[in-house]
Formats: sequence, C-alpha cells, structure tokens
Amino acid sequence: MAEEAAVRAQAETVRRLKQDKADPDEIAKEVAKLLDMKAQLGADEGKQKFVLKTPKGTRDFGPKEMAIRERAFKAIISCFKRHGAEVIDTPVFELKETLTGKYGEDSKLIYDLKDQGGELLSLRYDLTVPFARYLAMNKITNIKRYHIAKVYRRDNPAMTRGRYREFYQCDFDIAGQFDPMIPDAECLKIVHEILSDLQLGDFVIKVNDRRILDGMFAVCGVPDSKFRTICSSVDKLDKVPWEEVRSEMVGEKGLSPEAADHIGEYVQLHGGLELIERLLQDPKLSQNKLAKEGLGDMKLLFEYLTLFGIMGKISFDLSLARGLDYYTGVIFEAVLLQQENEHVEEPVSVGSVAGGGRYDGLVGMFDPKGRKVPCVGVSIGIERIFSILEQKLEASEEKIRTTETQVLVASAQKKLLEERLKLISELWDAGIKAEMLYKKNPKLLNQLQYCEETGIPLVAIVGEQELKDGVVKLRIVATREEVNVRRESLVEEIRIRTSQC
Amino acid sequence: MAEEAAVRAQAETVRRLKQDKADPDEIAKEVAKLLDMKAQLGADEGKQKFVLKTPKGTRDFGPKEMAIRERAFKAIISCFKRHGAEVIDTPVFELKETLTGKYGEDSKLIYDLKDQGGELLSLRYDLTVPFARYLAMNKITNIKRYHIAKVYRRDNPAMTRGRYREFYQCDFDIAGQFDPMIPDAECLKIVHEILSDLQLGDFVIKVNDRRILDGMFAVCGVPDSKFRTICSSVDKLDKVPWEEVRSEMVGEKGLSPEAADHIGEYVQLHGGLELIERLLQDPKLSQNKLAKEGLGDMKLLFEYLTLFGIMGKISFDLSLARGLDYYTGVIFEAVLLQQENEHVEEPVSVGSVAGGGRYDGLVGMFDPKGRKVPCVGVSIGIERIFSILEQKLEASEEKIRTTETQVLVASAQKKLLEERLKLISELWDAGIKAEMLYKKNPKLLNQLQYCEETGIPLVAIVGEQELKDGVVKLRIVATREEVNVRRESLVEEIRIRTSQC
Repeated sequence: MAEEAAVRAQAETVRRLKQDKADPDEIAKEVAKLLDMKAQLGADEGKQKFVLKTPKGTRDFGPKEMAIRERAFKAIISCFKRHGAEVIDTPVFELKETLTGKYGEDSKLIYDLKDQGGELLSLRYDLTVPFARYLAMNKITNIKRYHIAKVYRRDNPAMTRGRYREFYQCDFDIAGQFDPMIPDAECLKIVHEILSDLQLGDFVIKVNDRRILDGMFAVCGVPDSKFRTICSSVDKLDKVPWEEVRSEMVGEKGLSPEAADHIGEYVQLHGGLELIERLLQDPKLSQNKLAKEGLGDMKLLFEYLTLFGIMGKISFDLSLARGLDYYTGVIFEAVLLQQENEHVEEPVSVGSVAGGGRYDGLVGMFDPKGRKVPCVGVSIGIERIFSILEQKLEASEEKIRTTETQVLVASAQKKLLEERLKLISELWDAGIKAEMLYKKNPKLLNQLQYCEETGIPLVAIVGEQELKDGVVKLRIVATREEVNVRRESLVEEIRIRTSQC
Repeated sequence: MAEEAAVRAQAETVRRLKQDKADPDEIAKEVAKLLDMKAQLGADEGKQKFVLKTPKGTRDFGPKEMAIRERAFKAIISCFKRHGAEVIDTPVFELKETLTGKYGEDSKLIYDLKDQGGELLSLRYDLTVPFARYLAMNKITNIKRYHIAKVYRRDNPAMTRGRYREFYQCDFDIAGQFDPMIPDAECLKIVHEILSDLQLGDFVIKVNDRRILDGMFAVCGVPDSKFRTICSSVDKLDKVPWEEVRSEMVGEKGLSPEAADHIGEYVQLHGGLELIERLLQDPKLSQNKLAKEGLGDMKLLFEYLTLFGIMGKISFDLSLARGLDYYTGVIFEAVLLQQENEHVEEPVSVGSVAGGGRYDGLVGMFDPKGRKVPCVGVSIGIERIFSILEQKLEASEEKIRTTETQVLVASAQKKLLEERLKLISELWDAGIKAEMLYKKNPKLLNQLQYCEETGIPLVAIVGEQELKDGVVKLRIVATREEVNVRRESLVEEIRIRTSQC
C-alpha cells in the first residue's frame, strides 16, 4: 500500500513537471524513477500472487455460523420428519446428460467438470432432477422423502442478500399417483409450519397453477410456441414493474401489444376463494379446458388449506410463474414481508424463502418407456434464512455457544496433569462432555477464563487434598459456588446440574 | 435380447450353409438377411443410448442406507461433541492452487472443474487442506473442530470394499501450540471410543512417528532426497509382502540392497512400551536426533494412553508410514481384525477404518509469512464402516425403520377425508409425527397394512360415531388393541404410548 502511494506521488510529480514544461532531462530522470518504482511494485505483486480465499460465490462456515445453521436445519428436519418423510442422498455430480434439457435458459449456469477421461460430469443444479433420476433408475413409483444438500449455480452472486454459487437446498417431495391436491396441500402446510417455527417475521405464500397460466396465455392470444418464454417474462414481475415486462414481451419476444395488455389485466389479480370463483365465471377463461381444470383444483386446494387453518397466509396470485421448465400444475412461493418498524439499520431485501410445485412429467423424461410418476415438492431457501437469522442474532446480542461442553477438568496446583487425564477419561467414558487445557501446568485463572469465554457451566477441580479425600471440587461458573462431590457421585452430579442444557 | 438371439441363429444358419457348401445364391440371400438384422439391432441400440446411472465410483443412498448412515454419524458426532469440538464447513471446491503441492503422487487423483471463465477450481481431496487454508485465511491459531463432508478422488474404486470416488470423511483436529502429546493422545482416545461404540468387532490402532521413520532411514543409509519416496514404499507393507517392497526400493528407487535389508529389520518390529525402551537403547537409532525425539515423545504418548486405559488396542508399529506428505510427527491408523468365526459367508476385507497424525507445517504453507500452527487430527473412514454395518444388519435380519411416524390418521368409512385432514393438522401442530394416505376414501385394510409395512405403531381412526361422541379410536398396531380416547386427550395419549420411540 505504502509503495503504491509512493508510485502515485511520483506519477503526480512527473505530471506536474510536464505541465510546467520543466527541463526535459529532469522529466526524463523522474520518468525513469517512476518506471523503476512501477517495475518494483510489479515484482512484489508477482511474489505474493498466491491468493488465500474461497472460490467466488462461496464461503466458509465458522463455528458460530454453523451453530445458527444447525438451529435452522433442526427446525426444518423435524418438520419433514413430522410429516413422515424418509431421507435420501445422491452424488454431488451427475452425468452431464442427466441435467441436459431440464433447466431451459438457466442451463448455462451449470458447473461442468473437466474432461479428465471417462464420463462427462456436471455438478447438480438442484435436488429435483437427481430425485427424478433416482426414482426412474430404481423404478420407485411411490415415496415421500427429504433431501438436504448443496447445489451449484454459476450465477452472479449477490452475497449480501444471501445468494451464493454454492448453497444448500432443503427439499421435501411426494411422488406417486394420489387423489388430487392432497399432497399439494401438505407441501403448503409444511412451508407454513417451517416459516412459523423459524420466526422470521410475517410472510405470504403465493399460489398459482401452470395450467391456469397456460390457459390464460391461450385466451390472451399467445401462440403455443411462446408459452414458456412469455412465462419467463411473467416470472420477472416480482423484481421489475409491469411496464418493463410488457416491453420485453412485445419488443424482444414479438408478442402483440393487445395480447400483452390482456395478460397485464390478469397478472395484477390476486386474492382468495372469491377470486377463484370469479375466474371460474370469467367468460373467456372458463371456456379454456386447462384453465378450468387448474381453477377447479385450486378451489379444492383452498378447501384443504382452510381445513389446515393456514388460509391467512395464502394468496392466489396470477403473476406467480416460477422459473423452471418442469412444473406442470400447482406452483407456489413464500415471500417474507418487510416489517415496518425493524430495528436493523439496513433491512435486507430477502424475497423468496421457499418455493415449489407439481412436476408430473420429469420422472418420465428419465424412464426408458416414458412411464410417468406424478410429483409435488417444496424447496426451502435456507441460505436466505441463514442471512436473516444471522442478522437477527447480531442485533439481539444473544451469545451463542459453539460447543456443548458440560465441564472443564482443571487443577489448582502443578504436577496434576496425570490426575486430570485420569478424571477426564472417566467422564468421557460415562458420556459426559468434558474438556481440559492441553498444558502440563495451567494456571487456575486461565482455566476459569476459558469457561467464561466458551460458556462451560461447570469446573471439576482436582487438587492434592481432594485426591486424598476422594472428592472433586465442583465449581459452578455462573455463581462461583464450589462444592465437594464424592468422586463416585461426580458423573451423576454433573448430569443433574446440566440437565437443562 | 430376443433380437440378439435371432441374429445369432441367423449367423449359425449362414455358417452351416457355408460349411455344407450350399448354393452360393442361397448363401448370399441369407448373408444379406443377416446384415439387415444386424443393422436393425444397431439402430435399436442407438435409440436407447441414454444411460440411467450415477457417475462411476458414486452411489445413491436410499432411505434404508441413510438410516444406517445416520446411526453411524450420530455415534461419531456425539463423540466429537463429548470432546468439546466446534464444527465448521468449507466449500466443496477450492481454488486449484490451494490443493497444489499438498498430496505428492496422489495429486493426479484430484477432480478439476472445467474452465468456464473465471477461477480454476478443483473438488476437495480431503478435509485437512481446506482446514489449513481456513486457519491461515482467518488467522486462527487455536481451535478444536470437527468437519463431516464429502471428498473426491479419481481413484479406481473397489466399491465392494467400501471404496468410492465420492465419500464422506469425518475429521476431528486440534490446532494450536500445546504441551507435547496431550492433544495427540486425545485423538487416539477418540478413535478408541468411536470404534468401541460402533461395535464393529476387534481392532488395533497402529502408531508410529514420522521422525522415527526419518531417523531410521538416516541410520539405514537412505540419502535425504529419498526419504519421502522410500516412505511411500514402506506405506505399502500393509498390502504387499516385504520382498515386493524391497525390490521396489532397490530396483525402482535405486536404494542399496544393504540399506533396504537394514530397513527390513526395523519395519518388522511392533510392540508396546518395551519396544520403545529397546529402541531408545539401540546403538544406531539412539544416536539420531530425530529418532530420539520421536521415541521420547512416543514414550510420553504411551504414558497418557495408559492413563486413558486404552493400551490394550495400541501397537507401536515401525511399518506404519501413511501416504500423505504433510505429516511431521505422530501417525496412526486403526485396522479392524478379521474375526475367526464370523457368520458372514464372504467376510469383507476392510482394512483401515480410521487414521491421522500430526502435521505441524501445513498451515504455514498458506500463511503469507509462513507462520506455523501445529495441528494433529484424526479422520474416520466412514464409508468402510457403512459397508460393515450394512452387512451386519443384513445378516441380523433386524428390520430398520426409515421414518419416525408415530401415528397414522385413518378412517373406517367413506367421505371422511375432511375429518382426517382436520385431525392430522391438529396433530402436526402439536408436534406429533403423523401421516395419512393421500386418498379420498382409502380402505381400512390398506391403511392398516401401511402401518405394518412402515412400522407405524399407532392408528387414530375417525368414524361417524366417534365424531359424534367426541372421541378418536386409537389402535395399537402390534397388539391390535383398540381404545377410545377423548379428542382433547389424544395428543397426550400418543405421546405416552410412543415415548420409548
């Protein structure tokens, strides 16, 4: 840094000399000096060219971040298990051809592995395509499973908003031929349970159906071949205003202005059961087979959601489109609502924290005979949830423990390392979470400080006298109280005193 | 398949006609037919060229495998936490240069990502190098952490023996400047606890020290420049006999036969404290500074292991070398011993299930100023452990549950879907793990069968009469007993009856 400043100063000197039309020899001398300094700087840069960092769009999770992450996982997993889900895992990479043709325009974001001989591989882009591949490969026609794992997208990360190139997905899916809307309703119930449990603030779950969208496009005069690309445009409505979306439709995608305006009328609609009823009466929409089917199922879904008591957070929203190609029926997305009186100075714009939908055709794409397995599922956007939990925790100044250690085995005098090792070994063998300092003769003060810093609630202190008496001195860190406990009762005493932990 | 058989039959026809010297026209006709059939078959093969599989050396984990895997993880994590470890996570890929120069001959096994613009990346090969990078990057000089994650090696997998290209590592490491051998002893205690807890059968933990090996090489007359490569040869002794290792040393690596024979005498030694004492008196070895240091520390280590009460499973073994370049002190490896009277027909040869050692120089390789952070750690070879647990479970015919569902919400009559939805929603909201069949009118028999298959212990049956009476019929699947429970007491009743689960 100092060197760079010197170079800048020298450059300024040269500039001024030239400006002042100084003696050419003097200018030449200073220019030579400048070039020399620059060369020197370049050489230094060359020396330190090794960069100590994680790849772009990724991050490490230290103990504190992991503690927060595990809290969130715990809530999510316990919800998935409450709904009777099994768990599976698949490899982090798939054959490249497994991912081909599943993600539409987003395929360019897939990470490929280098061809080092053998198969061509890509990192998974989501957990849904590997799930469909797993079902087809193992001829499974019926399963309810969750899968929590990292996925990879070569996106331009906005890491402050919790967007990364490597990120976790928490997926729950129900595969199988069932009566309509029952598994779909359960997916929405799960989103509701998880977001309520995590206490992230107020939220709304937007719901729509690809069949309603396609029916709407048809009655608005969108040609069949443009359904998917117009759907992609509609998908941007949560980020950009209608005017921009409209001009993309008309300008870039060649849609007629009338069709676009017609779509514009529909996509501003959102509401509840009464909107469904109204659209079922809509003279155009009700004539379209797909739209009618979608609206009928939406009505059924809303009946089930009413029985689940979660209608307060549900909004039927005709502007919801979802990016992925493979959806065939119900789609949904949960969005956090920005609180008005938040304590954080710069509120994070978090957007969608969960999403999903029905994809009845995906498994069939993998089956040699094209046999279909209907599926519906939900994916929890855990990275954004982390960002919010991290920020909340920072604001609250709550001190978060990163270990579960119950007791520190300590000594007050020197030459007691062996006694500490013997005692800690007894505790470990009895299942007590115990630590000791890795020093032959640690100072008692340092041992007590370690407990304060890391939140260890108890200290078991061995000393000459205690050894003779067959006791251990147990110190309660919070109150500084000390009691002598008979060695044979120590394990039980520690258990009782830390049972709240 | 039928087509292939037809082709073979036709080929046989042609062969016989030729053998019988039949009419050339007839032969020509049959040959043409054969070629036609072959072309047809080729076209069919072309049509089905899409391969439905996971990449070479990887596998999916279905619900049953996951249940086994989670059992093993639970034992391992609870041991790590018992020893006060924090947890961290790092990205699945690192900058390519981060991995460069850390793995010696094995570097060719690293998976590289394709250059799609931007940074050059590689999949992590182990968790130790990312850990060292993490410490240097964050200037951490003191941490005890575990990390459980997948690593990647383009090895030729022997999947029957539990070797894969994608596999989990479970690492526990202690970083920091401490008094000698205390953290090292704890790592060995951890291996002992985990292997005992998992009940994999008898095992031995071999221990050695890189300094003893290097000292031994020096006194045997190995030139300094050949230390690492001769060490690699010694590392093969657990797989190939001494004669082969010797001829590699002499033939390929140009070591003198005398030096090799001298090494041969040392590497057959293994034992306990008495062997350490004997080597400390060894006229040559005791003159070597490195060896003496290593032997002194080994003696100290064995004192600590005696206090931990685990000497019964420890063997000081001069043939243990470990493959990786970065070890600088104590090294160790746990090996399962083949039981003599095993029930399995073809006992798996499992080899090493845990290993580790001290690597005091690795973090310094990442620090711009070369500042060292001494580290010692252990890695549990979880994939091999899975293979053994899977095989044991299969042999035992124990039925393993893949969900934790406590109760199935069922109905005996038709038209009760709405009542089932209402009840299951109440149960979920009360934290009960509940499922229902996704059918409008499921048969009671099917509902009961589902419980038998999946191990759900209770059925909550709603019926017209029960609804009127304000009760739910609770059926205990194992005993077929049925009791009426008041609706407001149902949650409590389910909790009590499944509290053992």
